Amino acid sequence: MGNLQQLIDDVHGELRERLGEGKIADYIPQLAKISPNKFGISLATTDGKIYNVGDSSETFSIQSISKLFTLTLALGKVGDGLWSRVGREPSGTRFNSIVQLEHEMGRPRNPFVNAGAIAVTDVILGEYQPKEAIAEIVRFVQYLANDSSIIIDKNVANSEIEHGDRNFALAHFMRSFGVIKHSVDEVLGVYFHQCALAMSCEQLAKSGLFLAASGKNPINGYNVVSSLRAKRINSLMLTSGHYNGSGDFAFRVGLPAKSGVGGGILAVVPKTASIAVFSPGLDNNGNSLIGTIALEIIAQRAGWSVFG
Amino acid sequence: MGNLQQLIDDVHGELRERLGEGKIADYIPQLAKISPNKFGISLATTDGKIYNVGDSSETFSIQSISKLFTLTLALGKVGDGLWSRVGREPSGTRFNSIVQLEHEMGRPRNPFVNAGAIAVTDVILGEYQPKEAIAEIVRFVQYLANDSSIIIDKNVANSEIEHGDRNFALAHFMRSFGVIKHSVDEVLGVYFHQCALAMSCEQLAKSGLFLAASGKNPINGYNVVSSLRAKRINSLMLTSGHYNGSGDFAFRVGLPAKSGVGGGILAVVPKTASIAVFSPGLDNNGNSLIGTIALEIIAQRAGWSVFG
Amino acid sequence: MGNLQQLIDDVHGELRERLGEGKIADYIPQLAKISPNKFGISLATTDGKIYNVGDSSETFSIQSISKLFTLTLALGKVGDGLWSRVGREPSGTRFNSIVQLEHEMGRPRNPFVNAGAIAVTDVILGEYQPKEAIAEIVRFVQYLANDSSIIIDKNVANSEIEHGDRNFALAHFMRSFGVIKHSVDEVLGVYFHQCALAMSCEQLAKSGLFLAASGKNPINGYNVVSSLRAKRINSLMLTSGHYNGSGDFAFRVGLPAKSGVGGGILAVVPKTASIAVFSPGLDNNGNSLIGTIALEIIAQRAGWSVFG
Amino acid sequence: MGNLQQLIDDVHGELRERLGEGKIADYIPQLAKISPNKFGISLATTDGKIYNVGDSSETFSIQSISKLFTLTLALGKVGDGLWSRVGREPSGTRFNSIVQLEHEMGRPRNPFVNAGAIAVTDVILGEYQPKEAIAEIVRFVQYLANDSSIIIDKNVANSEIEHGDRNFALAHFMRSFGVIKHSVDEVLGVYFHQCALAMSCEQLAKSGLFLAASGKNPINGYNVVSSLRAKRINSLMLTSGHYNGSGDFAFRVGLPAKSGVGGGILAVVPKTASIAVFSPGLDNNGNSLIGTIALEIIAQRAGWSVFG
Repeated sequence: MGNLQQLIDDVHGELRERLGEGKIADYIPQLAKISPNKFGISLATTDGKIYNVGDSSETFSIQSISKLFTLTLALGKVGDGLWSRVGREPSGTRFNSIVQLEHEMGRPRNPFVNAGAIAVTDVILGEYQPKEAIAEIVRFVQYLANDSSIIIDKNVANSEIEHGDRNFALAHFMRSFGVIKHSVDEVLGVYFHQCALAMSCEQLAKSGLFLAASGKNPINGYNVVSSLRAKRINSLMLTSGHYNGSGDFAFRVGLPAKSGVGGGILAVVPKTASIAVFSPGLDNNGNSLIGTIALEIIAQRAGWSVFG
Repeated sequence: MGNLQQLIDDVHGELRERLGEGKIADYIPQLAKISPNKFGISLATTDGKIYNVGDSSETFSIQSISKLFTLTLALGKVGDGLWSRVGREPSGTRFNSIVQLEHEMGRPRNPFVNAGAIAVTDVILGEYQPKEAIAEIVRFVQYLANDSSIIIDKNVANSEIEHGDRNFALAHFMRSFGVIKHSVDEVLGVYFHQCALAMSCEQLAKSGLFLAASGKNPINGYNVVSSLRAKRINSLMLTSGHYNGSGDFAFRVGLPAKSGVGGGILAVVPKTASIAVFSPGLDNNGNSLIGTIALEIIAQRAGWSVFG
Repeated sequence: MGNLQQLIDDVHGELRERLGEGKIADYIPQLAKISPNKFGISLATTDGKIYNVGDSSETFSIQSISKLFTLTLALGKVGDGLWSRVGREPSGTRFNSIVQLEHEMGRPRNPFVNAGAIAVTDVILGEYQPKEAIAEIVRFVQYLANDSSIIIDKNVANSEIEHGDRNFALAHFMRSFGVIKHSVDEVLGVYFHQCALAMSCEQLAKSGLFLAASGKNPINGYNVVSSLRAKRINSLMLTSGHYNGSGDFAFRVGLPAKSGVGGGILAVVPKTASIAVFSPGLDNNGNSLIGTIALEIIAQRAGWSVFG
Repeated sequence: MGNLQQLIDDVHGELRERLGEGKIADYIPQLAKISPNKFGISLATTDGKIYNVGDSSETFSIQSISKLFTLTLALGKVGDGLWSRVGREPSGTRFNSIVQLEHEMGRPRNPFVNAGAIAVTDVILGEYQPKEAIAEIVRFVQYLANDSSIIIDKNVANSEIEHGDRNFALAHFMRSFGVIKHSVDEVLGVYFHQCALAMSCEQLAKSGLFLAASGKNPINGYNVVSSLRAKRINSLMLTSGHYNGSGDFAFRVGLPAKSGVGGGILAVVPKTASIAVFSPGLDNNGNSLIGTIALEIIAQRAGWSVFG
């Protein structure tokens, strides 16, 4: 697979001229000030190789990609009991919709919409005190990526809290139904910190590689999750990983993936590779516009699709 | 893969005692009178072999599985222009919900909810007169299954029309937005006939094999669709093929599949096999309860999952 | 009250220059071709006098004002049993919304949204064959207005049927829940005919006078309904008579009233008068824009309000 | 009107045996512990007389009735500019629904649903510091009732804050749309205090008398609001004063009124009287069950209805 470097080099080169398309997330100043021309790709294969191009070593705010990590962590702590707290169905609504919660007694549809990820954080708080929970999440992501340099951007975390009314609404709403058990301030304190994890494409690709390798990180040999759980996490990414654009992403790219409004996407090619892309311009559903196109082309040229 | 016969025999034997669980569809008398003990499995592999067990040669009403065939037919006729008429996102609602249509200007979310399939039928009516359309759909399914004995159960079709108020509501509603262009009576006349196709597990497994084989039917060598289109249809089945239980099906079974309230499910193992199951007891989302469990066990034991 | 003629003359003169504001209903050609400059006012007092100005003797399509008459007729036939079929609450949604029906098992919120009026028509069909039902509705309105010349505009009725998809959707949807018991074609056949009643402001004002006079028509002495029922019908007009603009109408005008997309409004001043206005330009909620302003000014200058 | 004492005595006596029907609000302990047998009625007439029966001098938590007072206060501060912040339409949903807010950009439908009252409180905070705001609300209610003994029950206020997740959700949600401008903690701090006002039927009847008397308190001669504003506030109470039971209340009782989950209702007979009832058992919409029946009988026997 030595031509993989060529593949990502080509895609990076071809799409560079389209940088600037899409809309950069601007609900907090820290995200709004990112250059629209940032563009990185990292591709890690299950045989332990990694390929990089562009701004692949530059850290950015992973935002909702963190939902993948906290889900994995929470499943490790409480097992499938987690599913009594959050569903496994695509939402059919925007990432921050509250309508569904009112219609379904405060139970979020899946762990990748905001409400669901907040509920997952609440589950983690059943195991740790708030500060420990944040530390544990950081440690877990460092462990996944095999990189102890990963940190949280405190400015982003604080800014999220300041502009977090929509998430406060979701959390209080769920708490009124008993779905959230800890104080909203504690839960969102942790939640906003996990969203503010700063990671590079290379770190992200490495951290997601266990999902391509039956739950085992091929770089360091750690058994992260069972093979069955890895498959199931992949299924959730495929049906719900791109909010209300998940069906379209599956149609076009054909790979499980999780996006974040910081412009990152982490995709999984089962048994083969993980791919992280970063380009901050977003489409109407809040997913990286150029990042999605890059993944679409890479998957097509490499013949990677879970669908045939 | 000689042990596949053993595999489905085992699963059939193990689950037989649970027959009777779930609720048989009763909105028309023709479906309500089916014995809850019917249970068949057929498995067709891309090397042309077919394995059967139980009531695998007994025909039943395929109902919504027909949505897969009319989607394929319509894509063949109008190509990707179809997507201007219907979306590609999971609905997040029940199969016959009308709420989403009001919120999104009458445009159905995907071709596998009732509204979406009705819109697809309307597209087919742009190519054929109503009677011709029904005949063409039958011919197309016969061609897919390589079996000219497949017919429509007219009693079921007529009964559907008689009890079809919810679908009439969906069709008129879309027509008020211009999403349906032909008369509602014509569109639903065709729609209810396609739902009333009577097929056996064996016929279903054969008819879906092209989706496991890059678009080409390995039995007769027909090129049904391009490899890309086969992948895309699989993606739609995975994200939306089980109505509001699609996420759960992907989580548990990990295969693209389309279900019908007649108790059938047609699943695809890309590059490997197609599987049809039939057991009329339904779960809360209207999908075959024992059929889903059978697929879950088969997929697990055979190591078949698109997710790793 | 001899200055009432002066009052309506003044209002008519002052508002004439604003004619043309608003949007004429255009969903059927027969409504779209009405001149935006039509403007009539009729005011009937409980002492039997009637005051007219402008196009007050010109007939127009009363549309949803007919819902008031069929409600009164149906209550006369089945009494308060009607309320098992339709609610008495404001809808909080547009006149033709279907969302509420899905959330509340097909039961319409009140008799003045389309769904509710269709359910009321279904109740009338429990008493009459379809053709008789139409004849009975015409006779009832002639009786209320004491004017046997009132007829249905067949062109409007037929055009409504042709463009009636949204109402067909509502009716089929309710029928799927058992809320509508007769065939949708029959129910809507009657419904569209009642909407196509052609009446003048003068005829409307007379026909609504019983609601201002404790249920008794002061012109001919007929006892139309009991005093209690007259009050209750007035309450329904006040809370729901202007679709999703009912609260605003109550706030500004302060009188029970029912509007129609033909541009008419019939208002009631309890114990005092009934007022009919006609001006085809509609506001965003589908109510006569100038007609509402005219009623607001008349009510204010005459000191008429149910609220003090 | 000397027989008014007899009227309320009769009604009180007739309904006493039904006390215990309905469900006492139990979302905070302070409300849950009220005796279901409490029952008081006070009737104040515009000629300055007051009639009492039963537990009419016992204070209780007025809860949502306070929305009437803060609306009046806010209108006095900012005038009709208030209506840019909150609508005037019935909601068609439960008192604490958040669905409508998502569909309508965070703008609450009227000042009498929780979201609307919270927005009104935010407007008052544009005029006062939080502590001053609370003090001003108390002063205003004391002024309306001509009774300086009225106070806030701090235990209730604190308990509301503790169990206030649903209202925190509403406030944060509106704030995310910019509809709420102050901090949620400040706004709800004031809001929960106003809900915790403890008043008796007699105090309530007096405090609402200005709405029956063209805006002027006949007891002390104070001009509270203009005659037009009094009428408009009455209209809002009629269309929205009983949450999702407003239409039914108008149908049965025919008077503008505002209810609270503490079991109180304040009703207005324009130009005639104000009536306060207290009975803690609630119906399904959260309105006093026996209190509503009492008002229905009083209105009927006295011939009081705004509808004829």
